[in-house]
Amino acid sequence: MEHPSIIFKIVCPDRPGLVSKLTSWISDYGGNIKHSDHHTDQDAGLFLSRIEWNSIHTTINRKDIYDKFQTIAVDINGKFNINYSDEIPNVAIFVSKQNHCLIDLLWRVRNGELKMNVPLIISNHPDLESIANDFNSQFVYFDTVNSSKSDVEDQILKLIDQFDIDFVVLAKYMQILSDSFVQKFSSIINIHHSFLPAFKGAQPYHRAWKRGVKLIGATAHYVTKDLDEGPIIEQCTVNVSHRDEVDDLIRKGRDIERVALARAVRLHLNHQVFVYKSKTAVFD
Amino acid sequence: MEHPSIIFKIVCPDRPGLVSKLTSWISDYGGNIKHSDHHTDQDAGLFLSRIEWNSIHTTINRKDIYDKFQTIAVDINGKFNINYSDEIPNVAIFVSKQNHCLIDLLWRVRNGELKMNVPLIISNHPDLESIANDFNSQFVYFDTVNSSKSDVEDQILKLIDQFDIDFVVLAKYMQILSDSFVQKFSSIINIHHSFLPAFKGAQPYHRAWKRGVKLIGATAHYVTKDLDEGPIIEQCTVNVSHRDEVDDLIRKGRDIERVALARAVRLHLNHQVFVYKSKTAVFD
Amino acid sequence: MEHPSIIFKIVCPDRPGLVSKLTSWISDYGGNIKHSDHHTDQDAGLFLSRIEWNSIHTTINRKDIYDKFQTIAVDINGKFNINYSDEIPNVAIFVSKQNHCLIDLLWRVRNGELKMNVPLIISNHPDLESIANDFNSQFVYFDTVNSSKSDVEDQILKLIDQFDIDFVVLAKYMQILSDSFVQKFSSIINIHHSFLPAFKGAQPYHRAWKRGVKLIGATAHYVTKDLDEGPIIEQCTVNVSHRDEVDDLIRKGRDIERVALARAVRLHLNHQVFVYKSKTAVFD
Amino acid sequence: MEHPSIIFKIVCPDRPGLVSKLTSWISDYGGNIKHSDHHTDQDAGLFLSRIEWNSIHTTINRKDIYDKFQTIAVDINGKFNINYSDEIPNVAIFVSKQNHCLIDLLWRVRNGELKMNVPLIISNHPDLESIANDFNSQFVYFDTVNSSKSDVEDQILKLIDQFDIDFVVLAKYMQILSDSFVQKFSSIINIHHSFLPAFKGAQPYHRAWKRGVKLIGATAHYVTKDLDEGPIIEQCTVNVSHRDEVDDLIRKGRDIERVALARAVRLHLNHQVFVYKSKTAVFD
Repeated sequence: MEHPSIIFKIVCPDRPGLVSKLTSWISDYGGNIKHSDHHTDQDAGLFLSRIEWNSIHTTINRKDIYDKFQTIAVDINGKFNINYSDEIPNVAIFVSKQNHCLIDLLWRVRNGELKMNVPLIISNHPDLESIANDFNSQFVYFDTVNSSKSDVEDQILKLIDQFDIDFVVLAKYMQILSDSFVQKFSSIINIHHSFLPAFKGAQPYHRAWKRGVKLIGATAHYVTKDLDEGPIIEQCTVNVSHRDEVDDLIRKGRDIERVALARAVRLHLNHQVFVYKSKTAVFD
Repeated sequence: MEHPSIIFKIVCPDRPGLVSKLTSWISDYGGNIKHSDHHTDQDAGLFLSRIEWNSIHTTINRKDIYDKFQTIAVDINGKFNINYSDEIPNVAIFVSKQNHCLIDLLWRVRNGELKMNVPLIISNHPDLESIANDFNSQFVYFDTVNSSKSDVEDQILKLIDQFDIDFVVLAKYMQILSDSFVQKFSSIINIHHSFLPAFKGAQPYHRAWKRGVKLIGATAHYVTKDLDEGPIIEQCTVNVSHRDEVDDLIRKGRDIERVALARAVRLHLNHQVFVYKSKTAVFD
Repeated sequence: MEHPSIIFKIVCPDRPGLVSKLTSWISDYGGNIKHSDHHTDQDAGLFLSRIEWNSIHTTINRKDIYDKFQTIAVDINGKFNINYSDEIPNVAIFVSKQNHCLIDLLWRVRNGELKMNVPLIISNHPDLESIANDFNSQFVYFDTVNSSKSDVEDQILKLIDQFDIDFVVLAKYMQILSDSFVQKFSSIINIHHSFLPAFKGAQPYHRAWKRGVKLIGATAHYVTKDLDEGPIIEQCTVNVSHRDEVDDLIRKGRDIERVALARAVRLHLNHQVFVYKSKTAVFD
Repeated sequence: MEHPSIIFKIVCPDRPGLVSKLTSWISDYGGNIKHSDHHTDQDAGLFLSRIEWNSIHTTINRKDIYDKFQTIAVDINGKFNINYSDEIPNVAIFVSKQNHCLIDLLWRVRNGELKMNVPLIISNHPDLESIANDFNSQFVYFDTVNSSKSDVEDQILKLIDQFDIDFVVLAKYMQILSDSFVQKFSSIINIHHSFLPAFKGAQPYHRAWKRGVKLIGATAHYVTKDLDEGPIIEQCTVNVSHRDEVDDLIRKGRDIERVALARAVRLHLNHQVFVYKSKTAVFD
């Protein structure tokens, strides 16, 4: 069995000597670097670094790493996260009526492709409860029509707390989360259709079809208070033609939505995504 | 040498028996169908048909075909075009400073990949004159800053008339044509960048880069009075990442712009594109 | 509810007047053509035609169509199939240990995206029985190690007969079917990995990885006695890099295998695939 | 104007502390790292590192860097290359009759997209001389039919020496270079068509067409003595269908050949490609 690795993610103002400083610290504690990626965004003046290192010969305890590394972080004026490859996060998946993304994610979890637990599935429709049951997840239905948004969100936040949820995936959840919810719980991944050009508002596939688009796309992104405008993690497209009816566009859209969402969740689970300003750097 | 083929394009209200009626007419005159494509847009209630047939054994003269087919067209309440594979249209290419699309088109013409003549290249900048000279095209520069748009367009229309131009390609022509110009000369193909989501207005690549898009695209379309909103002929995308600077996005954008434009021009030359309502059907 | 449509597939030697003859026949019986696609393979001298027409106003009974059309077929020296859009075929899926293609197909069936029944799942391993149970399919395990291939295949043929199976999908079935089996049961669709260049034999992903390929692919094809060399229905590729380990290649390969296989099965179900000589024409 | 950067490429046996050692060396001389990419191939036991750093504040002279870094290289038992972003290499392009890759490369050079000089174009056919003249390159034609391969290659090697050529691009050069030539001149980039499955030998497009492939590809690779089997730099594919004749496959093949070759040359020019064992790692 492979020894767990330690994953550092650091963001700080760019300056000379940063890679050296970070990697020397790891080397001094006996760590062996497995992957290291660094990127300088000259426009933002920021240095981003992801270093995955093997803890097998390290002379430092897991519980001490955070505190000891804090000194470096202060020195470089940086923000950092430390994660371990053997941590299995708890994820809540939010759905409505469409099942394609939910099923895809749950099967990838079952097959060991996505290393996460899904103890909680939340929906504003009762339709997908049997799928949740098949995969031993708790399914909680909220009647969002006859309840206030703030009441529902309060209850959801309690469940998130109760199930110790690390991040949320919106797998075709057709409700808009309030700003206050989004601010309280920062790691939310969403999937939505994308087109060239964009078709905002209702019935986008119908309108894209009427315009005769030759490509349709899907975008997986983090949710911010600007709806569908959060930092992009992954995008995919597929060719369409006049031979495709609206239903074919929707069907093809489902296929790329689940691929884009699964890739985005995997990148997030592997701590390969940096979010800064309004965008991401994805170290794949 | 291959015998030229005759290309019928017909659009009419859908009803039973149309394919039979059209193909029987051709068969009765001894024609052999090489390619036939039909499409019914049920939403629009329209039937679209492209039939390419071999004239080798036909008993009808080219000059009589139009008049004789008129009877059928009236019967089915249809609009039609008749073209011949040995007709080489005259094309005017409009450019500004960027040369990538112009060069790509001219080399494809020289290599026999695009069967068209380019006797005329029009620009609002003098920069690309030497390329026009290399390919024996007349280069005409208009100072659009110190002249009125209507004066320039009037002169352009005279040139288009003088050079017997069949259609226009905007190969990164950074001027907006007036509605009246677009209405006078209907077949104009344009190329522009596309993104998911769209970034309208100035500096789209810079803004797409700031947003961290993972794909950039190019759209070739017919020009209508709704700027950049005309019927789409062809779309392409290419992956980008945070490793790409704005200049890399622009460079990658150039590569897909020229591919999408060359494909669109080829489809138009082969009479494979139907334009109806706000969209196209591309029989490729 | 939509009225069922009738789907003609005809292959015959090319000659003038074929489209007219076929479509006039349909028109004479009051049929309205929804889709018609024709292709002439000049190298093979063959004409291929798929005509989908609406039976709503037709004056001919379903049971008479075959016999009446026979006269046309004899006249044009053609082979033909007649299918109806409301026929739901029975499909047997063969699997081994990998579940990704099986699950993908079964879910698409459940969601109504693939219009077929899957009453029978056959395997040379017992692992996937619970999935078959979840979807109410009969799972039959054959111990191919301790039984002769001909015994097993005889039993499979009996099951195929008993369950009235129309076609077979090999969804990562890691056994080679005998020539005699393949000849007895012609419609078998298989999926396998593909590379540029090809890596024949054992451990292809490992060898592709060692060669540093930048793309991996999947090919869905009909099975003929030339293993993995049958007529191709669909092919997909995905980018890979040196950052991908062998496991990543295998994971990415699974994703495109299931997409390519689902597309191929759908095209087959819609009678959009013509097989002739060693290849296909896919009217999509 | 941007200050030139220094590009280190290092390959050595993997062990802890390498990134730290390398980056500390640069930091100690006042260098600021712009890009650093590291990869460990655990199968090969090798560590690969590309570090691009800014020389603006460095305290070391360009002429001393190599010697000083030698100490580190010996210590880590590594091989290394040092290049500078302001070095413009001399490239010889070899062609036969097809011009699409040659033209594409020369225009990208003229537009500043590929930072290289092309003083020499070698061909076994006289056809493309005028293109060489247009771009002020010396065109040298060798009659390979009536001369011995070794005589021709000796003369080519003299020209390569005379024009101080840094690397060679085979832009559809339809001659096989001898093993001894390949060994004498290691950096040779080639482009060739690729298929799934592979079609080795003569007329691959015709054979791929007969097999009804749905995708065709292009592979850019370094030339080794195993013809068309050298380390892969870049691969592209494009969709094809039964509607495409052999000529269409060839035309589409040309488009992806030039894209794949241009990308590969650009990656090589930027020193982003590591070749080791039979493969590459491409730090893009």
